Amino acid sequence: MKLLVIGGGTAGTTAALFARKENREAEIVLASREKVPEYSKCALPYALSGEVDFQDIIYREEEWYSRTAKVELRLGWEAVGGDLEERKIEFRTPNGKEREEYFDSLIIATGSKPKALPIPIEGEVFYFNEMSHAENLMRKALASDEALIVGGGLIGIEVAEALLNLGLGVTVVELLPWILPNLLDRDFSATVEKWLEEEGLEIIKGIGVESISEDDGRKIVRLKNGEERKVDFVVISVGISPEVSLAKSLGIETGETGGISVDEYMKTNVEEVYAAGDCVETLDLSSKRKVISGSGSVAFRQGIVAGVNSVGGEALYRGSPLTRCTSIFGKEIASVGLTEFLAQTLGIKYVKQKVKGKNLPEYLPGDDVHFKLLVEKRTGRIIGAQGLGRGSSWRANLISLAISKDMTVDDLFLLETCYSPKISEVYDVVTRKFLDTQTYYLPHYVFDKSSLLHHLFQYSLFFFSFYYGIRCRRQAVLQYGYHLADFYIFDFFWITLYANRCLSSLRVRESPIGVRAMYPCLSFILERTPWQNSIKCLHVRRLHSLSLSASSFNDCIILLTCTPLLSLGKSIHISTSALIGPMGITNPFTPTFSMGISLSGGSSCRSLSIWSKVMHPPSVA
Amino acid sequence: MKLLVIGGGTAGTTAALFARKENREAEIVLASREKVPEYSKCALPYALSGEVDFQDIIYREEEWYSRTAKVELRLGWEAVGGDLEERKIEFRTPNGKEREEYFDSLIIATGSKPKALPIPIEGEVFYFNEMSHAENLMRKALASDEALIVGGGLIGIEVAEALLNLGLGVTVVELLPWILPNLLDRDFSATVEKWLEEEGLEIIKGIGVESISEDDGRKIVRLKNGEERKVDFVVISVGISPEVSLAKSLGIETGETGGISVDEYMKTNVEEVYAAGDCVETLDLSSKRKVISGSGSVAFRQGIVAGVNSVGGEALYRGSPLTRCTSIFGKEIASVGLTEFLAQTLGIKYVKQKVKGKNLPEYLPGDDVHFKLLVEKRTGRIIGAQGLGRGSSWRANLISLAISKDMTVDDLFLLETCYSPKISEVYDVVTRKFLDTQTYYLPHYVFDKSSLLHHLFQYSLFFFSFYYGIRCRRQAVLQYGYHLADFYIFDFFWITLYANRCLSSLRVRESPIGVRAMYPCLSFILERTPWQNSIKCLHVRRLHSLSLSASSFNDCIILLTCTPLLSLGKSIHISTSALIGPMGITNPFTPTFSMGISLSGGSSCRSLSIWSKVMHPPSVA
Ligand SMILES: Cc1cc2nc3c(=O)[nH]c(=O)nc-3n(C[C@H](O)[C@H](O)[C@H](O)COP(=O)(O)OP(=O)(O)OC[C@H]3O[C@@H](n4cnc5c(N)ncnc54)[C@H](O)[C@@H]3O)c2cc1C
Ligand SMILES: Cc1cc2nc3c(=O)[nH]c(=O)nc-3n(C[C@H](O)[C@H](O)[C@H](O)COP(=O)(O)OP(=O)(O)OC[C@H]3O[C@@H](n4cnc5c(N)ncnc54)[C@H](O)[C@@H]3O)c2cc1C
Repeated sequence: MKLLVIGGGTAGTTAALFARKENREAEIVLASREKVPEYSKCALPYALSGEVDFQDIIYREEEWYSRTAKVELRLGWEAVGGDLEERKIEFRTPNGKEREEYFDSLIIATGSKPKALPIPIEGEVFYFNEMSHAENLMRKALASDEALIVGGGLIGIEVAEALLNLGLGVTVVELLPWILPNLLDRDFSATVEKWLEEEGLEIIKGIGVESISEDDGRKIVRLKNGEERKVDFVVISVGISPEVSLAKSLGIETGETGGISVDEYMKTNVEEVYAAGDCVETLDLSSKRKVISGSGSVAFRQGIVAGVNSVGGEALYRGSPLTRCTSIFGKEIASVGLTEFLAQTLGIKYVKQKVKGKNLPEYLPGDDVHFKLLVEKRTGRIIGAQGLGRGSSWRANLISLAISKDMTVDDLFLLETCYSPKISEVYDVVTRKFLDTQTYYLPHYVFDKSSLLHHLFQYSLFFFSFYYGIRCRRQAVLQYGYHLADFYIFDFFWITLYANRCLSSLRVRESPIGVRAMYPCLSFILERTPWQNSIKCLHVRRLHSLSLSASSFNDCIILLTCTPLLSLGKSIHISTSALIGPMGITNPFTPTFSMGISLSGGSSCRSLSIWSKVMHPPSVA
Repeated sequence: MKLLVIGGGTAGTTAALFARKENREAEIVLASREKVPEYSKCALPYALSGEVDFQDIIYREEEWYSRTAKVELRLGWEAVGGDLEERKIEFRTPNGKEREEYFDSLIIATGSKPKALPIPIEGEVFYFNEMSHAENLMRKALASDEALIVGGGLIGIEVAEALLNLGLGVTVVELLPWILPNLLDRDFSATVEKWLEEEGLEIIKGIGVESISEDDGRKIVRLKNGEERKVDFVVISVGISPEVSLAKSLGIETGETGGISVDEYMKTNVEEVYAAGDCVETLDLSSKRKVISGSGSVAFRQGIVAGVNSVGGEALYRGSPLTRCTSIFGKEIASVGLTEFLAQTLGIKYVKQKVKGKNLPEYLPGDDVHFKLLVEKRTGRIIGAQGLGRGSSWRANLISLAISKDMTVDDLFLLETCYSPKISEVYDVVTRKFLDTQTYYLPHYVFDKSSLLHHLFQYSLFFFSFYYGIRCRRQAVLQYGYHLADFYIFDFFWITLYANRCLSSLRVRESPIGVRAMYPCLSFILERTPWQNSIKCLHVRRLHSLSLSASSFNDCIILLTCTPLLSLGKSIHISTSALIGPMGITNPFTPTFSMGISLSGGSSCRSLSIWSKVMHPPSVA
């Protein structure tokens, strides 16, 4: 079989090499428009500043591919068209000739292209997306004094740092009111701005560029407010868009983001045609929407999956937590998942925890570290984090794992981290806030407690709260786990709970007289069990208040069966059985299983309309 | 209410302070035998070497406790007895007088004491467990030239480093054949030994000390092999044992390890009496056995839980992944969970992944990093890791989270970590091995395929494999997820699967003729679904081979229902329904739910004994 990979960047090269690992026999051709084999794009700013050589960031020599990996590398080959039915791709080769390649499997890894600035531009401006761009820019920079960068994103700022290191005067113009808006919110960004300004960077924020004109070999950048800057050259770095022209011409589907649509195998809509990297759209695991990741760490992992699947193996790519980090003048910046700004834009309600601390105990010289964690309000699910200072990228990695596993804020509570004075604080900022404050609450509902219907409502809410995790109230941050529900019924009955190990505690309490005085105060039988590591069946009679704490919704399964044994004056029979499955937000397990309430009103509640809902698992033919 | 805390170390002080956070009203008394308020024990080696002042490692001034925290701190108070029925504790106070304190809640946090060496010892030797020990040792060291340390554990080695830094000649004698045996296996330890020997440390391994005698103010240490060393002083650091003399005298239960037995609330066998820190036995989450943690990170978290619960709050401590780290001559060492040595000792079968790499890409100057991951063979569960070099403690933190959540090796596969050249490699050693090799296999069973009973056996094995996760075969490391099972039946039937998001793929394959030629080769209907984020019902007809991949056992729930539609020549009716729950090793969910196989033999299999087992959830009265 023959695998053809188009694009020799991170995704394409990784795909080719992992396809080779997976399949020793396959013929593998890796074609790239660029003149050099895979290099570290992410290191281009350091090549620009002269800290590393352009040659050094090329990962392997051209010969290595054929000799060691048995991959035919075709440099300077640009795919210009083809026919997927016929399984062929047409190339323009370095000598200008057209060539065709046939394939059994195809991987498209054409990466991204810099977005253009939709304003009048006179003469040449610079972009920074390829080695050739960086080389051109370096030549220009070494002969210049002043530069202006349009765009204060990650690449814009890294280029700014490089140019500052080369001794140039540098100005960054960012349309939004703060820099690094994809990584940081305004508060954290302000700290980074301070670092950069101390190094001499001029930052102009919250204003757009109107035009770029030329005068006497120099550039005049006119801002929307009428101000002008005269500089030697301009770098445009206002984001990327997926390079999908080839894919589209081949009839491969793209999604709303403009990127190629792929499934979890990194397969496109066409059989045996895969795609990976900046050219595809990726599931953002925090918001569950599709994005263009623009990230090497994503391209690398998607490349593995596409490569493995393309030659008969099996691997799945399930989405990205979207980690990002950089180092600015030796200071670490990291981010994962959503920022507050993005969560607000997407309408996701969140709670945040913000901590400032040190990476080492006070008695040792350490670094300031800042950490912010975003938690989805409705579910407690961790959806993002930002960090500044030493260890931030590792904190983001921890949160990356948490996001990948749909963990809630409770899953991090009391997480044990390594401690030794020269290495860490006994409680690192990554979990510190949970311990330090008692102000973190998930929302809860308040009910009118006056009617029978209320109880039913609350009763159904009880399930509802399991189901969606919305009625989660943490009475104090130090309390381990959510209070999944508090509910009370005036009659006694039995509850059987089958819970897996994540149900960490069960406490049955008598209500304080006064608050719940309307219910006869009967005693209850309580078998207090440590739920961890055991499945327990609990029979509670004459229940007044039941609160369940689960350590995490993610792996929580509870089978609850209530049957009233006796009906007192106010007769009500409630018989219900529910299986409450894992609380994955996008995938509540419950609907598949029987769950619901069936009620038969007794004599004293004749007015009660019977509210009943029983769902059974679909029966099999 | 009045809370009395005995022991002013990490656990006791943390308990008192978090009790205060939890309860603004409670009267809190914190009594400690030592003369100073809480200090960083872990920093004592750095105080010994003079890098920090003894004064600086005291966290808070004495007045702070009463003024800010409203905690009555009683320094120099030693608890000597009491009566738990009467809720009183007797103290010896600094002026020698006896005093009694009554309490509503009690927390015992008496820490540990150094183990003694069971050999003849002449004159004074040094221990290193308290500030006073360190101060004494410092005085001695400053007036000496040569020291010998018995015990090459964490504390022994940290003291050795400090004494080397003070300019002394230092010898460490370790009974086991390598140093730091609680943290590292022999391979990793060898690297640390090299570092230490380069700094001038003499290490004598695999040999015990026979006696310590005195001669002319110096010490003569005689080894078991007859060798002798003459040094100025000897430090004994051969481990700790829990300080439980008070607890025992009060009638509080201790466990097999000698530590106080506590439940998840950190409560002892006596109501309202809690215990935390080095004096209790802790659940090791990797091996599920009880241990004495001897670790500040554990004491701190247990202190929180005991403190909160003791004054009416609710928190749970669920066990420790046992993180440990240190820095030796600026080099990071970290460990979490089991070592190979310990796993072998406990009879736990494991697979290891060992990687050597760098913390940064090759083109930048970076550190060598070593990383080893241990995975339980039977289940794929992560049970330990060791690391050397930069970032090791954070890698251990990541594994700590994985162990806390019972994750398998697959949960780390393709984990996205932050990437920027000056900060990290695109694939850090923590996940690298998964990507790099194809040699990692979990065991699988091989069957004799000759009889009908075989199928039944295999069929039941199918469930069995879900149930225990034992029939997990990874065909290649790059394949995402376990193959939970492959099974085939000669007749066609329906399968309905309800799976939550963790069931990552389902592939139904036709068997290669030859291997499975005995079964008529019928076609099948396959609905290939991306299982993630959806619950799917799959109807498979004429099934021959079904393999399921789940990303993780931990949150895997599968409801499987098979009903044969037709019986061909060899009639067999299999009707079964199983709910397979989370695969937590200690807590398979399944038994609670209906699971099993009911068979009715058809005409052609009259000889078949009907094997049937149906378990229903216990029905409610
Ligand atoms: C300056 C800079 C710094 C960065 N820093 C980081 C960082 O620190 N961390 C991080 O994770 N990510 C970083 N990134 C992003 C990261 O480099 C990209 O996400 C990653 O390179 C994407 O990989 P890819 O294979 O999808 O695309 P690319 O690496 O862009 O490769 C695509 C290749 O396909 C070729 N190609 C396109 N069309 C064709 C065609 N028709 N025929 C043949 N070949 C074609 C292109 O020429 C290119 O060589 C940075 C990017 C830049 C520019
Ligand atoms: C040199 C050294 C280095 C270490 N380095 C690390 C490290 O890097 N990381 C890490 O996690 N852990 C480290 N540890 C371990 C850590 O210090 C302990 O695990 C932790 O201090 C245990 O806390 P504790 O409160 O249980 O006990 P302790 O901190 O020992 O406190 C117990 C206190 O109770 C007092 N006490 C005992 N009996 C009585 C009584 N009857 N009445 C009144 N008071 C009493 C004791 O005097 C003592 O003050 C180190 C330990 C040492 C000695």
